[in-house]
Order: sequence, then structure tokens, then C-alpha cells
Amino acid sequence: MPDAIVVGAGYAGLCAARRLRTAGLDVVVLEAGDRVGGRTCTARLSGGWAVDLGGQWIAPAHTRFTELARSYDAATFTGHAQGDHLLLSTTSRRRFTGELPPLPPHATAVLALALWKLDRLASRTLTTTQAQHLDSITVATWLRCRLPVPQARRLAEAVLGAELSVDVASVSMLALITAIRSADGVGGGVAAETTAALFTHGADGPAQSIAAELGDAVRLNTPVTSIQDTGNAVRVADVQAARVIVTIPPPLAGRIHYDPPMPAARDQLTQRMPMGAALKAFAVYDTPFWRAQGLSGQALDLDGPMTFDASRPGGPGLLCTLATGPAARRLTRLDAPERRATIIRSLIRAYGPRAARPLDWREKNWADDPYCRGGYNAYFPPGVLTSVGSALRTPVGRIHWAGSETATQWAGYIEGAIRSGERAADEVLRTEAKFTEPAVPS
Amino acid sequence: MPDAIVVGAGYAGLCAARRLRTAGLDVVVLEAGDRVGGRTCTARLSGGWAVDLGGQWIAPAHTRFTELARSYDAATFTGHAQGDHLLLSTTSRRRFTGELPPLPPHATAVLALALWKLDRLASRTLTTTQAQHLDSITVATWLRCRLPVPQARRLAEAVLGAELSVDVASVSMLALITAIRSADGVGGGVAAETTAALFTHGADGPAQSIAAELGDAVRLNTPVTSIQDTGNAVRVADVQAARVIVTIPPPLAGRIHYDPPMPAARDQLTQRMPMGAALKAFAVYDTPFWRAQGLSGQALDLDGPMTFDASRPGGPGLLCTLATGPAARRLTRLDAPERRATIIRSLIRAYGPRAARPLDWREKNWADDPYCRGGYNAYFPPGVLTSVGSALRTPVGRIHWAGSETATQWAGYIEGAIRSGERAADEVLRTEAKFTEPAVPS
Repeated sequence: MPDAIVVGAGYAGLCAARRLRTAGLDVVVLEAGDRVGGRTCTARLSGGWAVDLGGQWIAPAHTRFTELARSYDAATFTGHAQGDHLLLSTTSRRRFTGELPPLPPHATAVLALALWKLDRLASRTLTTTQAQHLDSITVATWLRCRLPVPQARRLAEAVLGAELSVDVASVSMLALITAIRSADGVGGGVAAETTAALFTHGADGPAQSIAAELGDAVRLNTPVTSIQDTGNAVRVADVQAARVIVTIPPPLAGRIHYDPPMPAARDQLTQRMPMGAALKAFAVYDTPFWRAQGLSGQALDLDGPMTFDASRPGGPGLLCTLATGPAARRLTRLDAPERRATIIRSLIRAYGPRAARPLDWREKNWADDPYCRGGYNAYFPPGVLTSVGSALRTPVGRIHWAGSETATQWAGYIEGAIRSGERAADEVLRTEAKFTEPAVPS
Repeated sequence: MPDAIVVGAGYAGLCAARRLRTAGLDVVVLEAGDRVGGRTCTARLSGGWAVDLGGQWIAPAHTRFTELARSYDAATFTGHAQGDHLLLSTTSRRRFTGELPPLPPHATAVLALALWKLDRLASRTLTTTQAQHLDSITVATWLRCRLPVPQARRLAEAVLGAELSVDVASVSMLALITAIRSADGVGGGVAAETTAALFTHGADGPAQSIAAELGDAVRLNTPVTSIQDTGNAVRVADVQAARVIVTIPPPLAGRIHYDPPMPAARDQLTQRMPMGAALKAFAVYDTPFWRAQGLSGQALDLDGPMTFDASRPGGPGLLCTLATGPAARRLTRLDAPERRATIIRSLIRAYGPRAARPLDWREKNWADDPYCRGGYNAYFPPGVLTSVGSALRTPVGRIHWAGSETATQWAGYIEGAIRSGERAADEVLRTEAKFTEPAVPS
């Protein structure tokens, strides 16, 4: 009988298993899909070039992820950022440089003030009354009050919507504040993205390396549909162990059948944490041709998806289209050829006729993934954090919870997934004396 | 092989099965629990007196429910409404008569104006922009803007929270408008409650009668964990049929494993529709002693649960405590004896020392029910109706959807459950020619 079972072989699950094994425990990782990496997922183009269909960024502030990447010699490179960015809407196309898209001075001032207020909210300890108020309004409501200039508001809605992978109308303001706090403030999140690097061979590289180390302990194609806690042990699929760490997204953890049933607060929490919507599509060209036009490949479309340059050094030109929330939903209602044609029309509008004929095409709609059913993360609608939020990390009997959503720092990032897995592993190690005592030499 | 399978033996499922069988179809009803009635649930006191732990009201406007009750000779009685009602808070106890609790004239005026605005919103066709705006704010936000008088707002929050079984901070304003529209306007909902009757022998009586008619077709203790749609048939548990109607609450329907998987919009909808929280507790006394004090038994506690008189004519005194949202959550965090003591302290404060020693005690926390996991209904957080709301009733292949949440009229009431089941049955009957052609006499 293994000591612990880990459900899910994303970064949270693999890092939990790694830490448990390092502490001398016998671990089994059960993964529903036919691959490891969870919400990172690397496709290969002809020539072996990597394309990250899921999470991809690593920033200097992501200290655990950086250490992990180093221990497995995962090569990274800094994304191409030279050249002008584009600000698009259905009726306009404007080039700009720097971090802030071109807005009239008044709108820029209002935006800066709102960002400052956000940062201040995120850095203060909130009173219960303040937290309850912020949890009773949507981000859309807060922006409408604090950003009375429509141009500035539309920009903030687009950027925050992309950050949260869901319409600002759906998310609790308290959840946004919590997310900003967990990412070192408004500046921290932005800094993480502007200074972020990508993995030359794909962001799931370190995950593959951990899985290789764990060897047979990782069982693919093993969906977990029920977990039984007998009081003395847990039984998951046909495996029995002392403890289990569930690392899959909360709404999917809620679909597992638990015996005995989950306490009301935990069950109602998983009912209240839906996944955002995210679609990533990559158009592959022989070269990053937009660079010769003085363009960075970064475009923000106020009425649609964003694009950025995902080309590997020396590799083909790669334009990534990232659609979230309503934009993702509009695109996924189309069939595949129509969707591709629609995205390419946007790319032509941004980067000219050379965008018309990509050599290759890769896409992933995360809401279609049977073991994610959305992306990037589960979000908190209003009223959830202050009512049942405390059930997010609280173990239930022999069941522990991990996954990026449960992280206290960098929740929603790969960094958060790693930290959550390690935290849950530490929880398990503290539960039984035999887990911390040195093994008797045989 | 039966023609159709129905998942869930609440009013929606039983009424769907009844209509299908009347049309000549062979039907099987699969029920997870050991009883029929769904979110109605009748307990029996000594002497056989009924206690409705779930839904209980029937109003003249509930035409389908009224017909059903008549066809099965289910006796009803009008609840006791004579005497003064109570308005309670942590610091006050005031008697009042009529529909509106005592407020200063200005607050009453503001409240009336807000109700009128609500009614107008619910009776108009909304533009897409209006609908999107109303779906981007919580009910709490709307009340804060439209009810600037704290006393009036607090009352509205308490009443609407109890109506929706969830904190007004959690619910989309568009969802409230939709609910009001489905209940014939603000006045309709109130009228339904003030003119409502109860069932002498319990609100699940007609459900029991339908189940008796269906006989062996209803299989209890048969939880449905997976549904396979082969294209030619559906397979549910070990039963195969041409069509299936899933009538369980949307968040629980989302926990079924579908093969092939649900389309993204349907899956994300079930992630986004959590159940409210509701707890009902009944204190049983030898007589309805509060009537002699000139009290109706109805009390609205601005800081806690509501109570009302649920005594059957000629039966023992029954005080029902109904806690929803945060009040339900506070009570369910206590263990059973503490919870009972807390509720009884409130009853003493409202009705005096005679409330201290009930002869019997019955309670049900719907979030603990493994086949409901909340109550009364699933609600719509902001941003859901306008993004994936259209997936609520849209059949997926051979799978049809019913349940009170899917009703276009009286959604959230037993009346809505009945109508939704009959509508889904009609959908099924239209799908195949053999279902509508008269059977060839053998």
C-alpha cells in the first residue's frame, strides 16, 4: 500500500509527489488524461519546434518555478518585445510603444488613478465590512464607478478580462484584489509578464522531467471518479493509501463522488468556482515577418482576442491568438474552419496580407478539454470568498487540496500550482509520525 | 428497451414520466435517493401529522400544480395568517400587521419606488445592452443604488435573500428580474405567498400518487453517474432507451459523466449554477400557543432566519424556522444540539418562554442532502445568463433537460418543476414519429 495518492499530474500534483517521494514516501499519481502537465500542454511542429497551447510564462518573481526549471536544465528565452504594439478595435488600428496603449491624457490619468487605488486595496488589510462590500460587487461595477472615462474603462475591462480569463461582469471585486495581492500587486503581475521568459522546448518540460523521475508511480489514463475515506485509509480507483492530495481544478474536484459526502461548505464551494474560458490558436509562418514592419507581434483588440509573438529563437514565425471570456465563447461557437478563417482575418487586419496563409495551425479550446473544462483557472463570482472561501484549502479527513487556485502566492500561475503542491505535501508529511521519522535502515 | 429514461423522481421527473406514459411510451424513472418528491420532503410526527421539510406552498396562480393536486385529491388548507407579525433584529422586536413591516414613511416610500422599478424592469422587453448591464451587477449593487435608505435596504435584502435562498451579494440582477418575470411580477410572487395553501398530508403527496401510478417504472436507490449517447440510443446505468430527460439540479447534472462529453457551453453553464443554501427546522408544541398572544407566527429577523406557523388544522403547534444564505451557513456550522439551542433562543425572543421546550424537533439542511447539495434552487451569479444561459434548456443529442430551474414560468417553484417536466416530455414526444403515431392494435 503506498503512503499517499496524488490526483492529477499537472505541476501541482507532480511537485506534491516529488516532495513526498523526497521525504521517503511511497506515492502514486493518478492522471485522467494521456499526458502530464495539466494546464501546460506543449505541441510540436515539424522540425520539433515547441508550441505552448496552455500556460507558458516564467518570471523572475516565480522563484519555485525558476528553481525547478534550473534543476531540470530547462532552457528559456526572453520573448520578442521590440517594435510597436497595436491597439485594435472594430473600427481602428493604432501603433504604440511602452506599457500603456495610447489614450487621451485625461483617460490615462483616470486609468493611473484606478490602478493606484487597486494597488492600495491589494496592499492593505481589509476590515470584514470592506471585504464583504468588495465581495458583493463585480469587477465591472467597480470599474464603472472608478473609471468614468469610457476609453480607459474599455481598456481596463479588456486587460483584466484577459488576465482573469473571464468577463469582468462575472468576477467578484474581492477576488480581483486577492489575485493582485497574490501576484505582488498590480505592478507585480505586469512585471511578471513584461519580464517573463518562455521555455525553448515547451513549458511542460520540467513537468515531463519530474514525471520521468517518478516513473511507474505516474499512471496515465486513470480518471478518478470516486474517493472513499474509510477513516483509516483512503481508497481512490483501485489504490489504497494513508492520504490523498486532490490537485485538479475545484469544479472538477466537485464532480468526484466522495464517500462520505463532502461537508456542505466544501461542496458548495466547488459548485461556486467555475472555470474561465480560454482559447489559444497559433498561426505558423516561415519567419516572424511582422518584425520587419517594426511590429512586436503584440496586439490588444478591445473587441476581440489578443495576439503576441511566440516564435522560438531561430524557429518559424509564431503568432499566438489568445481569446478569453466572451471572445473565446464567440470563437468556439464556430466550426474549426470558420474559427480559423475568423482569426486569420484579425491577423491580416493587424499584420497585413502575409498573415493570410499560415503554414501550420494549432489551437486548443480549454473548455473542450474533458479534464479541465475551461481555462486558465477557476474564478470566484461575487459572494463566494466571504461565505465558503475558507473551505478552499481545508483538508477533509484524509483528503488534502492543491492546484493553482489554492495557492496563497501566485494563484492562477504555474508558480502557484507548484507552491500549492508543495504545501499540500507538507500537510501530509505533518499528519503521521512515521512520515517524518527517519526510516530504520534495513 | 424502454422508450425514455427520466433521471430524478422529483416533481419534474414524475410529471415528465406521467406525460410520456399517458402518450403511450414505456418509461423508466431512475432516482438516486430512497424516496420520491425531490425538493419536497414530508416527515411524519407522532399522530401522523405532516411536516414539510422542503417546498410546501401551492398558490392559485400555480395552475398545473393545482390541477395535479385536484386529480389526486390532495387536501390543502390555508396557512394561519391572523394576528401580528414580528420584525426582529439583534436589538429590536416590533409587532406589525399587513404586508409591509413598520418603516419610517420616507423609507416606505423609497421601498415602494424600488418595488415599482423592479416590476417595470420585469415587465419590459430588455435591450441586449440593458440585459448585459443588469447581468454585470449583483442584486446587492442594485439595492445600494436604488434604496439609499439603510432601513429599507436591509429589509429588501432580507426578503429577497430569503426568496432567492442566497445572499443578494451573490446573485445577478438580471437573474432576479428573470425570476420576478417568471412569477408574474413582484406582486405575483408576493400574492403567491400570501394566498398560498399548504397540503394537509404534505407537499409530496401528489408526487407519491404519481409514483404509485408509475409503479415498478420508478427505481429508487439508483444514482446515475454516467450517461452515454451512442447516437442511436442513450445508456443510463444499465438501462438503454431512445431518449433521456435529466431533471436533477444543474450543478448535480454537471457531475454526471457524459460520453461524449457535454459541449463547452453546457458544461460551463453547470459549473456556473450553484445551489443556494437553505435550512428548515420545525419546533413542535402541544398547541399553537402564540395565537393566544395575538401573534401570527410570522417573524422576519433582519439578522437571522424567518419563522412562520406551519400547524395543521387540529394538529400540534408547529413553528417553522427557515434560514437561507448566510443565516443557514452560520447555523449549519454548529453541531445539532447547539443549532437547536440557537434556534430555540430566537423562538423564545419572538414568542416567549413557552417556546423553550418543544415536544419534538425536525430539521433538514438541504446542502447536506447528497442528491440536492443545497436549496431551494440553483441561482445565476452575474455574467452567466448572458454568456451561457442559452444552454439551460437546449437538448444535447438524445439528452433533454428539465427541473424547476429550467422553467420559463414559476422557475424555482414546484409549479415550475411540473411545467418543466411536461415541456421536456413534449420535446421527447416530438422527436420520433413512432412516439406520436397511434399504436397499431395488436
